[in-house]
Amino acid sequence: MKNGHTALTMQDAVLTLQNYWSGNGCMITQPLNTEVGAGTANPATALRVLGPEPWSVAYVEPSVRPDDSRYGENPNRLQTHTQFQVILKPDPGNPQELYLGSLRALGVDLAAHDVRFVEDNWASPALGAWGLGWEVWLDGMEITQFTYFQQVGGVSLSPVSVEITYGLERILMNLQGVSHFKDIVYAPGITYGEVFGQNEYEMSRYYLDDADVDTNRGLFEAYAAEARRLLDLELPVPAYTYVLKCSHTFNVLDARGAISTTERAKAFALMRGLTHESAQLWVRRRTALEHPLGVTPAPAPAVRAPLPAVSGPETLLFEIGLEELPHADVQATADAVRESVTTRLAATRLRHGPVTVTTTPRRVVVIVENVDAREPDTTRTVRGPKKAAAYRDGAATPALLGFARSQGVDPAGLHVLEANGTEYMAATLDMPGRPAPEVLGDLLSEVVSSLRAGRNMRWRDPSLSFSRPVRWLLALLGRTPLPVTVSALAASDLTRVHRTAPDPVVRVTTAEGYAHFLQMHGILLDRRARRDAVVRGALDLATEAGGQVDLDGESALIDEITDIVEFPHPIRGSFDERYLELPAAVLTTVMRKHQRYLPVLDGDRLMPHFITFANGLCDDAAVRAGNEAVLRARYEDAAFFWRADLKAAPEELRGRLDQLTFEDRLGTVADRADRIAAVALDLAERAGLPEEAAATVRRAGELAKFDLASQMVVEFSGLAGVMAEEYARRAGESEDVARALSGMELPRSAGGALPDTDPGAVLSLADRFDLVTGMFVIGAVPTGSSDPYGVRRAAIGLLNVLRSVPATAGIRVADGLAAAAARYTAQGVEVPAERLAEAAELIARRYEQQLTDAGHEHRLVQAVLVRADRPADADLTLATLERHADTEEFGALTAALQRVVRILPGGTPEDGAPAADRSLLTAPAELRLAEAADAARTALRGREDDLAALIEYSGPLVAAVGAFFDEVLVMDPDLAVRAARLALLEDVAALARTTLNWSAL
Amino acid sequence: MKNGHTALTMQDAVLTLQNYWSGNGCMITQPLNTEVGAGTANPATALRVLGPEPWSVAYVEPSVRPDDSRYGENPNRLQTHTQFQVILKPDPGNPQELYLGSLRALGVDLAAHDVRFVEDNWASPALGAWGLGWEVWLDGMEITQFTYFQQVGGVSLSPVSVEITYGLERILMNLQGVSHFKDIVYAPGITYGEVFGQNEYEMSRYYLDDADVDTNRGLFEAYAAEARRLLDLELPVPAYTYVLKCSHTFNVLDARGAISTTERAKAFALMRGLTHESAQLWVRRRTALEHPLGVTPAPAPAVRAPLPAVSGPETLLFEIGLEELPHADVQATADAVRESVTTRLAATRLRHGPVTVTTTPRRVVVIVENVDAREPDTTRTVRGPKKAAAYRDGAATPALLGFARSQGVDPAGLHVLEANGTEYMAATLDMPGRPAPEVLGDLLSEVVSSLRAGRNMRWRDPSLSFSRPVRWLLALLGRTPLPVTVSALAASDLTRVHRTAPDPVVRVTTAEGYAHFLQMHGILLDRRARRDAVVRGALDLATEAGGQVDLDGESALIDEITDIVEFPHPIRGSFDERYLELPAAVLTTVMRKHQRYLPVLDGDRLMPHFITFANGLCDDAAVRAGNEAVLRARYEDAAFFWRADLKAAPEELRGRLDQLTFEDRLGTVADRADRIAAVALDLAERAGLPEEAAATVRRAGELAKFDLASQMVVEFSGLAGVMAEEYARRAGESEDVARALSGMELPRSAGGALPDTDPGAVLSLADRFDLVTGMFVIGAVPTGSSDPYGVRRAAIGLLNVLRSVPATAGIRVADGLAAAAARYTAQGVEVPAERLAEAAELIARRYEQQLTDAGHEHRLVQAVLVRADRPADADLTLATLERHADTEEFGALTAALQRVVRILPGGTPEDGAPAADRSLLTAPAELRLAEAADAARTALRGREDDLAALIEYSGPLVAAVGAFFDEVLVMDPDLAVRAARLALLEDVAALARTTLNWSAL
Repeated sequence: MKNGHTALTMQDAVLTLQNYWSGNGCMITQPLNTEVGAGTANPATALRVLGPEPWSVAYVEPSVRPDDSRYGENPNRLQTHTQFQVILKPDPGNPQELYLGSLRALGVDLAAHDVRFVEDNWASPALGAWGLGWEVWLDGMEITQFTYFQQVGGVSLSPVSVEITYGLERILMNLQGVSHFKDIVYAPGITYGEVFGQNEYEMSRYYLDDADVDTNRGLFEAYAAEARRLLDLELPVPAYTYVLKCSHTFNVLDARGAISTTERAKAFALMRGLTHESAQLWVRRRTALEHPLGVTPAPAPAVRAPLPAVSGPETLLFEIGLEELPHADVQATADAVRESVTTRLAATRLRHGPVTVTTTPRRVVVIVENVDAREPDTTRTVRGPKKAAAYRDGAATPALLGFARSQGVDPAGLHVLEANGTEYMAATLDMPGRPAPEVLGDLLSEVVSSLRAGRNMRWRDPSLSFSRPVRWLLALLGRTPLPVTVSALAASDLTRVHRTAPDPVVRVTTAEGYAHFLQMHGILLDRRARRDAVVRGALDLATEAGGQVDLDGESALIDEITDIVEFPHPIRGSFDERYLELPAAVLTTVMRKHQRYLPVLDGDRLMPHFITFANGLCDDAAVRAGNEAVLRARYEDAAFFWRADLKAAPEELRGRLDQLTFEDRLGTVADRADRIAAVALDLAERAGLPEEAAATVRRAGELAKFDLASQMVVEFSGLAGVMAEEYARRAGESEDVARALSGMELPRSAGGALPDTDPGAVLSLADRFDLVTGMFVIGAVPTGSSDPYGVRRAAIGLLNVLRSVPATAGIRVADGLAAAAARYTAQGVEVPAERLAEAAELIARRYEQQLTDAGHEHRLVQAVLVRADRPADADLTLATLERHADTEEFGALTAALQRVVRILPGGTPEDGAPAADRSLLTAPAELRLAEAADAARTALRGREDDLAALIEYSGPLVAAVGAFFDEVLVMDPDLAVRAARLALLEDVAALARTTLNWSAL
Repeated sequence: MKNGHTALTMQDAVLTLQNYWSGNGCMITQPLNTEVGAGTANPATALRVLGPEPWSVAYVEPSVRPDDSRYGENPNRLQTHTQFQVILKPDPGNPQELYLGSLRALGVDLAAHDVRFVEDNWASPALGAWGLGWEVWLDGMEITQFTYFQQVGGVSLSPVSVEITYGLERILMNLQGVSHFKDIVYAPGITYGEVFGQNEYEMSRYYLDDADVDTNRGLFEAYAAEARRLLDLELPVPAYTYVLKCSHTFNVLDARGAISTTERAKAFALMRGLTHESAQLWVRRRTALEHPLGVTPAPAPAVRAPLPAVSGPETLLFEIGLEELPHADVQATADAVRESVTTRLAATRLRHGPVTVTTTPRRVVVIVENVDAREPDTTRTVRGPKKAAAYRDGAATPALLGFARSQGVDPAGLHVLEANGTEYMAATLDMPGRPAPEVLGDLLSEVVSSLRAGRNMRWRDPSLSFSRPVRWLLALLGRTPLPVTVSALAASDLTRVHRTAPDPVVRVTTAEGYAHFLQMHGILLDRRARRDAVVRGALDLATEAGGQVDLDGESALIDEITDIVEFPHPIRGSFDERYLELPAAVLTTVMRKHQRYLPVLDGDRLMPHFITFANGLCDDAAVRAGNEAVLRARYEDAAFFWRADLKAAPEELRGRLDQLTFEDRLGTVADRADRIAAVALDLAERAGLPEEAAATVRRAGELAKFDLASQMVVEFSGLAGVMAEEYARRAGESEDVARALSGMELPRSAGGALPDTDPGAVLSLADRFDLVTGMFVIGAVPTGSSDPYGVRRAAIGLLNVLRSVPATAGIRVADGLAAAAARYTAQGVEVPAERLAEAAELIARRYEQQLTDAGHEHRLVQAVLVRADRPADADLTLATLERHADTEEFGALTAALQRVVRILPGGTPEDGAPAADRSLLTAPAELRLAEAADAARTALRGREDDLAALIEYSGPLVAAVGAFFDEVLVMDPDLAVRAARLALLEDVAALARTTLNWSAL
């Protein structure tokens, strides 16, 4: 792999792929002579995948991504990288195998290396396109995108096309074992850097620094107008070409930082619309031309073989062979198929033993033990006409004769059946049991055709739909192959093992011991066994290296690994210790998120090792070396960012935020950071943070968000905050400030970790109040499942902080929103009061949802929602409420208060109503109640848990209320007296009103 | 070749070429992702050929030529065709052989086929680039451009690059034997038309009909501005990319007919300037980067072998081996080398026999018979100081000693020499003769290094320069190889025969009988023998077919054929008779100009045959088939235009002329045609054409130039007029009108045929007066060698018509110009009088040049130039003058008239001078002269040849003048008498003044 002197040159790789794919039925065409961001955009893909005509093509596509400009300095990133694009339309049925053949042609020893298909769902909003598929990993390096296109230009595809996009630079870096793209040997005696280096530098200069923004805006408009005209002229080809020019120009503007969020949305909508029209027009034109390349025939339905004879109870083995499922679908599919099989079996009379369903990424295996050879025979009674209407004058009436005929029996064979006191004529029919092959054939066929996942796709066979293609079926009843057909698929007694096995298709002779059979072929069918193997392998290798793996912390990743391999083969790799100088979060983020590696720890300290899992046995040394190279490249990348970032002080990075648009109407990220800083100071004051903490908030506020301008965060957006903390610390900021900066970004998700310092919590709130307020101002309000700006997540985040960080418990939601609104107003953005009310309402609804999701009783939740403005208080109240709700004492209190509230007039007092004169309250019950109310008020004052206080004091109060109603007529004819009495009751109600919504109880 | 089922597909051809050239040291890169008109424009050529870095590359380039848009209907023409581009930098020394290897790789049997390198000098004004080279013909089909780049972006190249550009569609059409590009098999099961047909149609629509002109103008400006900015930012790569975008946009506008001549010139200047700056900047940048790819070393000078011993007089054979010379250089080189060798030999003492130099396109062979083995010994006497200064006191003076020392002789050996009466001391030195190898080695080296042609180029060896590269030297003196070296070339005893020979490099053992030796290898060295072979071959094959060849008419073509092959191997091909329905001029134009075929005639009638000459023996059937296919394709093309054109009536085509810009300020071609029509009518009237002829002029004028809108003329511009005649005739116009329309375009060149009808002649004049007048109005006046609008040619044309077509003899140049000016004025273009005077002057100067060139005596020419306004009159006068100039009679007349003229005051009569009162003339001599003058005037009146008439009448006139001066005092003191006498003399002078400029005699 790193055998530089025997490795292919870049140009040889291209020639090899061209030869390979032309040998496999693809036309070889040329790159487009207009800048495109990917081979997908070339009309040879984007238009040709539309409609029914077959089309198999391969071409190189130099792909221009202005955003990836790095002056040629970054080892992995180029403004123009070289894709090799393959389109197979229709899906030939074995595209993965064809693809693997191309890797062999490139000289990759598939038995030695670890080639994996790792879930990747592709979508291009600009193209109005999506598809499902994978990244292909070669020893951990993503070398190819493999996608089943489902929709392009907003048009659903039929047939589906397979797209295979090789990233040639990556493959070549791997094949040649070099760590910078410039070092790739392009052709004998000349490197990639020598060929393209100056181009990279100069085009990077253009895209990042020197492109004239006004000129490019003008070009964008001109291109769009030309595309529009050409669509109206019904010329899809030039129209689409102009859409591509639009798109490139947009990318140039974007790389120059000249595109605001609003402009982006507008431009995308425009381009998506034009693309959609181009696609529709293309389809119409091809139809008008009567599809010159012909129409792809649907695959012929499989012919079901004659039913075999079977005997005795036998084990049923049914395997659904798949292309690699996304890890999240592996278990879900097991559950769904188990349910499906069980339910469907229950609807038959076929007797059987236990049903087990196990899954790997490539197979669903259904085992049903002791399946009878056939259903038992039985009878069925069918009710006919009433006996009274069956015979007339002793002869069978036409009704009876008709019934007998319809049931295929002799009228003489009918008998009488009594139901609900009426006599009917009835037929009893023999129901012979069906043979198991017949029952199972239909049943299993339905199981396959009803497969569904969260996200489904189509492939070659237009009548099937699932998470990934179903490629084979294996059905055995004991030793007898069962004829099962689903659309074009027919079951056989063949299964497929590892694609790299010497013989990847093997015959299965018996349903018994299939798991063992698979294990012999290097596949662990049982998920628990696979997970154990992952855990054991990880621990063993970690221990060997003198470290350990955080099994709890990595539990989700271990689950994922379990569901992406059929045989977890652990390999420990290492990386250069010098990378340990990078923040651990950077290193582990790369390992986990990008590579699915388990980090190895020595106590809390990261060790320079990782554990990866190949899919089955391989040449450990080669796979280790490959994965190490990938990680090295990624860490080199990260180190590159790290070093570059450290050259700039936090203030300097902070200064660059005014180059980043936050949202068109809401200003730059710098404006947002300014607002957050101000709001945080305001909230710190409201929360009463001590001066030291307030100073921390002030300083962290000054630097707020500065790491968004760092290269590291631009690359790894998930490290926002983490990097701020690291960079701030290195820049000599105090530990408090550093942690406040990372705290600001927490929580990252609904259940994510919270800021661990008070200044951090305050900044986190400020951040989220700013976001929510701003989004309500511009109307970017979440609707249904759409929440592009993460407003719901922000609301949940601020609730979590307010509910969990005691120092912030005193901050009202309304105050937070008002503070944020004040900053917007100061920046010239008007914030209507209704918007703030709506925002508060959204937060309250999230809070309600949180409580409901946590299992709190609806009634109680409703009761405390009145306190949603201070959710920590509401939490406390709810807890108290839950403790007391069922007590007699609380019942009495509730009844008393409800009685008080009921008698009070709704709304505000009428105009002209006399003021309440307390001196008119003279009766003992009146005085007693007034006293009790005063005492309660005193008792509640300063009590955090006011409900608890109220309950504690409820005895005298309840008694006083009872006495008052017993002895006093509230609605005294003397209006003045009446007013005084109502005022007294109002005092009592007021005690309770802010505590709970009593009427909800 | 036409073996469809075994021929390569288009994609196989690309893969084959990529493999071939990568195997020959080229990098394989990708097409540019911006529209370019040719692979040359790709920076991988346009920038990389600059500077000293080596660079060998091959790539496909889909080349976009909006002008070639034909909606996919034309069999040979596409808006996007596919080039395969190869750049070899430096010239590897054998690029032609490498290229032929690539044809072999494509499956071309070079021994069977006729591959020829046909002169083609390439220049791209937009790129500021030029080079010399060839079109490569495969059986008559141009399949490749082969160029030695000399300059790109205005920068001279060192080293020179070899550019090889394959036209893939043409090669594939030939290889697959199909006659429409759509039928090329692109890949198994799919044709070119199926892949690209819709694209061709839609992009043609865009380029020809639908591109928005304003938008594209805006784009042009924007791109140019961006290029300008990027140059200022010193970024040559993006700057040049924008120049390319400019260029494409310009081409789009041009295809839309939106570019006037002025705009074109401006745009070209802009693009050339930007390209030049990009090129210079690139060179600077690469220098600043210290030439990352290294610096191409100059080839090492050849080392001269030790001089051999030779004896006895021997024949010298010296061959300069070349790549194919342009036909015009073949004979010129023979002459120049003969002169060079002869002169240089004369400057030596080497005795030798006759010198002969013969040439073929690939070799210059110098034979010198009887060359002595060495120069004879001789002596040389050198004069020293005067004897008087040589000795002082009997001792040798320092002067003498110094002289002796400088001559390397003993002072005692000096002797006395007398010269002009003075005695000097002198030395007589021995001058031993040099051996012939030494003399010849230097001499022949100089012959090679001093080779020059009309247009010269450089190649691998930077110290040589010639029409085409010198690739080998052969030098033998008898049987002895002579060591001759020139720069990196060393002579040997090897020559090269046909490249397709089994052994293309052969050893020559003796200088004797070299022509015979070459003949044995299929090369006819002697030009006369080659020409005879062409003539004989043509006649034989024509006769076989029952026809003949017009040897006189085709003499120039026969010469050309003689000079483009080393062995003319005649092959007769045929074409489908149905093409004979096309005008013969179309058919023969294609044959002669495009294919160098000799037409076969049956009497005046064209036969469906042609004769071509392969370069040496070949598979006649294959070569015939290939050439027939080429001709078929070209005729198919012509027939396509023919049919298309016939669909439109002449009026309709005429109507389209308003789409064609003539010149920005001078309007459209329609405007010009309108003017011509009006001027022609005016001239017809002046010429006094009869009404029928005038009607012809009127009708032809209405249709003037209509064929410029025909596809045929757009394609074959040389057929303008010819097609007008054909189309007019077919459209039912009268024969007269048809011929007038073709006459309008005559003469095509200085010596070309003239209109053969009077209406045609009048239209021809109108055309040319319009052009000349217009160009003087806009100042597009010819200067030096530059005459972009052909104003001189137009002037010569109108002179030829006026001088040769009697019916137009009466038209004055001034009238023609005035008529043209009147039409311009009517169209709103002001024509200052000085411009017209300048135009008349230019025409007069051309006329003078014509007369001088024709060998007329300067004095006489000057004398008749006064009549240049009516050149036919002037011609007549000149002829008369030449007959009489030396007669006594004429001498007397001249003297008499000069005497009269001398006494007349210059200028107009003074104001206040008395009017001449003829009644005052009373003396007999006065009366006699008056009578003679009257008689002469009467005699001259109505005589076309007024000079002849004057001479006839000269006797009485001369006598009367003599008597008058003898007897009368002109300057009578009586001013009235004086005035009357002067008036009489003026009458006499007036008789002569318009006839001749007597004072020039």
